[in-house]
Amino acid sequence: MPKALDTTIVAVVTDIRLGTEPLIGYGFSSFGRFAQGGLIADRFAPRLLRADVLDMLHGDGLAIDPLKAWAVMMTGEKPGGHGERCVAVGALDMAIWDLAAKARQLPLFRLLRQVFETETSLVSVPIYAGGGYAFPHNDLACLREEAERFRTMGFRAMKMKVGAHSLEVDCRRIETVLEVFETGDKVAIDAMNAYSSPRVREAAAAFEPYSLRWFEDICDPLDFATHRAIASAYRPPISAGEALFSASDARNLLRYAGLRRGHDVLTFDPAHCYGIPEYARILAGFLDQGWSARDFQPHGGHLYSLHVALGFGLGGCECNPHNFQPFGGLADGTAIVEGEASPPDIPGIGFESRNLLMDLFRQLVQS
Amino acid sequence: MPKALDTTIVAVVTDIRLGTEPLIGYGFSSFGRFAQGGLIADRFAPRLLRADVLDMLHGDGLAIDPLKAWAVMMTGEKPGGHGERCVAVGALDMAIWDLAAKARQLPLFRLLRQVFETETSLVSVPIYAGGGYAFPHNDLACLREEAERFRTMGFRAMKMKVGAHSLEVDCRRIETVLEVFETGDKVAIDAMNAYSSPRVREAAAAFEPYSLRWFEDICDPLDFATHRAIASAYRPPISAGEALFSASDARNLLRYAGLRRGHDVLTFDPAHCYGIPEYARILAGFLDQGWSARDFQPHGGHLYSLHVALGFGLGGCECNPHNFQPFGGLADGTAIVEGEASPPDIPGIGFESRNLLMDLFRQLVQS
Repeated sequence: MPKALDTTIVAVVTDIRLGTEPLIGYGFSSFGRFAQGGLIADRFAPRLLRADVLDMLHGDGLAIDPLKAWAVMMTGEKPGGHGERCVAVGALDMAIWDLAAKARQLPLFRLLRQVFETETSLVSVPIYAGGGYAFPHNDLACLREEAERFRTMGFRAMKMKVGAHSLEVDCRRIETVLEVFETGDKVAIDAMNAYSSPRVREAAAAFEPYSLRWFEDICDPLDFATHRAIASAYRPPISAGEALFSASDARNLLRYAGLRRGHDVLTFDPAHCYGIPEYARILAGFLDQGWSARDFQPHGGHLYSLHVALGFGLGGCECNPHNFQPFGGLADGTAIVEGEASPPDIPGIGFESRNLLMDLFRQLVQS
Repeated sequence: MPKALDTTIVAVVTDIRLGTEPLIGYGFSSFGRFAQGGLIADRFAPRLLRADVLDMLHGDGLAIDPLKAWAVMMTGEKPGGHGERCVAVGALDMAIWDLAAKARQLPLFRLLRQVFETETSLVSVPIYAGGGYAFPHNDLACLREEAERFRTMGFRAMKMKVGAHSLEVDCRRIETVLEVFETGDKVAIDAMNAYSSPRVREAAAAFEPYSLRWFEDICDPLDFATHRAIASAYRPPISAGEALFSASDARNLLRYAGLRRGHDVLTFDPAHCYGIPEYARILAGFLDQGWSARDFQPHGGHLYSLHVALGFGLGGCECNPHNFQPFGGLADGTAIVEGEASPPDIPGIGFESRNLLMDLFRQLVQS
C-alpha cells in the first residue's frame, strides 16, 4: 500500500562554517499538503541558487536575511491561487530561518522577536495534544487510552477528530475523551473540513451542549457564508485558518466569515502559508482589526510552530507527540510543565534535539 | 537567462490501438502557472497508474471515462488551497479527455456536449486575439503593428495588457490600438492583477471614457471588496476568474464581488481549474444564479479552450496566435471567418493539426 500522505524535506547548505561544521538550515512542509519536491526543485530553489548573494545578505553580515531571500523566491509569482506553492516556499523559508538563527547563535523564537519587534517575554506557551483520530478497531477504548496517555505526559488539553462517523458516534467519542479531560474547555474537536453546509448545522447543534474548547475546520474552508451562519448560532468557539494559505485568503476570512474577536481561534500554519513573512502579514491583518496575537494557535504540532508561537506571543500551539513522526512533538526528553512547553535552548529551530529526525535530515545532506 | 515561465506537458499512453497507432492523449498546463511535473509525477499520476482499470472504464466500454478518472486523481485531496495542484490535475484531465474523445472518434467539443448534455449547436465561436504586452523598444509603433497584424488575420477584437506603465502611457497605448480596431467594444484590457486597491480606482476612472470591451483582472483576484467597488463605479464590463481555480473560489466571486449578470465576463481557465469536471461545476454555479454560458470566455487562447467554448456554448474565447508557441492559437492554416473559428474536425482536441506542437508531444512519448 503506497503512502497516501508524506512530507517534503529540504536542507539549505552554505559554505559558512560554525567551528568545524558547515552551516545548514533544515525545513519541511508541515503536515497535510505534500509532494512539493518538484515545485521546490523546478521553480523556487533555482531562484535562490541564481540570485546574487549580496541581494540576500543581511545588513549585519551574518549570513542570509530571510526576508530578502523570501523576496527572491517570490520573484514573478502571481497573485491568487494560494495552494501548494505556498507549502513549497514555506518549507524553504523554514530552512532559511533555521539557518539565519543558527548563524546568529539564537533559538529561532529570539530571532523572530528581534526581526518583528514583538513585545513578548514569554518563556513557554500553552500546548495541547493533537490526536483523537478514528481507530480501526475498539475505537472508544483506544481513544480513551490515547487521552489518558496525553494526560500522563502532562497535557492539560487535547484535540480530537470528528466527522468520520455519525453524530451519535461522535458524541460518544467526545464523551469518552471528556471522561479523561473532565471539562469541555480542555477538549477541542476538528472536523477537517469534512462537513457539508447542512451537515455542519446539525453537528454544531449536537456538539454545542459540551461547551468544547473549539470546533475546528467546520466545513469547506472557503465557504465563509457557512462559517458566518455557525458563528452566529453556535455559542462555543470555532476555529479556522488551517486550510487558508495567504494573507489575501485570511483577509476574506476576516471580512466574510463572521468570526468573533477574542472568542474564535485562528489556526493558520506558517509552514503552509509561504512561511514566516506571510504569516506575519496574516497576523498583522487581524491585529489591525483589533484581534490579539493570543487568538492565534498555529497548526503543525512540531518545534517550528512552537517557536512561531513563542516568538510572536501567540495563545499557544498544537503538539503532535505521536502522530507525524519523526516531525511531530517537542525536543527529545522535554518536560511539559503546567501544560506549557518551550523549544530547546539551542540555535535555530532545534531539530538537532531530535535524533530520529536528524537521521532523516542528514541523509538528505549526504545524498 | 533562465526562462521565467514555461508549461508542463503530459501524455497518457494506453495499450489500445486505433488501427496501427497506439491511443495516446495529450495535455498541457495552459499558460501562467508552471512547474507541475513534480505534483503530477509524485501525487496524481501514481493514483491513475495504481487504480483498477474497471474503476475508470466508461460504461460504453470505449476506453476511459474522464469523470471516473478525475475522481481517482482527486482521491484524498483536501478542501481549500486551490493553487498548483489544480493545474497539475487540469493538465492530466486535458490528456484524458483528448484520449476519451479519440477513442470515440469525436472532436472533444462533441464529446463534451454528449457528457454534459449542453444544448448548443454552434459550429464556431467568436474569438479575440490575445497580445498587447509592453514592447521593450518602440512600444507604441510595435503595438500598432501587432494590432494591424491581428486585424489582417481576421480578428475583430483583441485584448491588450495595462498596468506596466503610468496611466498616461497606458491611455496612449489604448488609443493606439483603438486607431486600428476603431471602437471600444473591440478592445479589452488586462491588468493581470497588478493594480493595488487605490490604484485600480484611478485606473478605472482613466479608462472608463473609452467604453472598452472589458477590463480584466483588475486587482488581487481574491480582493472581492475592491471588485465590488469597481463594479459599482465603472460602467463598462469588467472580467474576472482567470486567477481563481476552483468552484469554491468561484462561488466567493459570485457571492462577494458584485459582478453584474449579463454584463461582466468570466474568464476561468478550465486547464487551471482541475480540468473540465470542476469547470462544469463553476459554470453550473453561475447558471444557477441566472447567469448565461455566454458570459464565459475562457482564458488560454489554444485549441483546448476553443473546444470548451464550443462544447459548452460559451460566449467565445481567447486566441493566442503568436504568444505561448507552440501551444497558442488554432489548427495550422485555420481561417477566421467573421471573427469566429472552429477547432479542426478530427478526433480529440486536435493537437495533431499543429505540427510544431506535435513535435514536442512526440518527444515526450519517445523519451
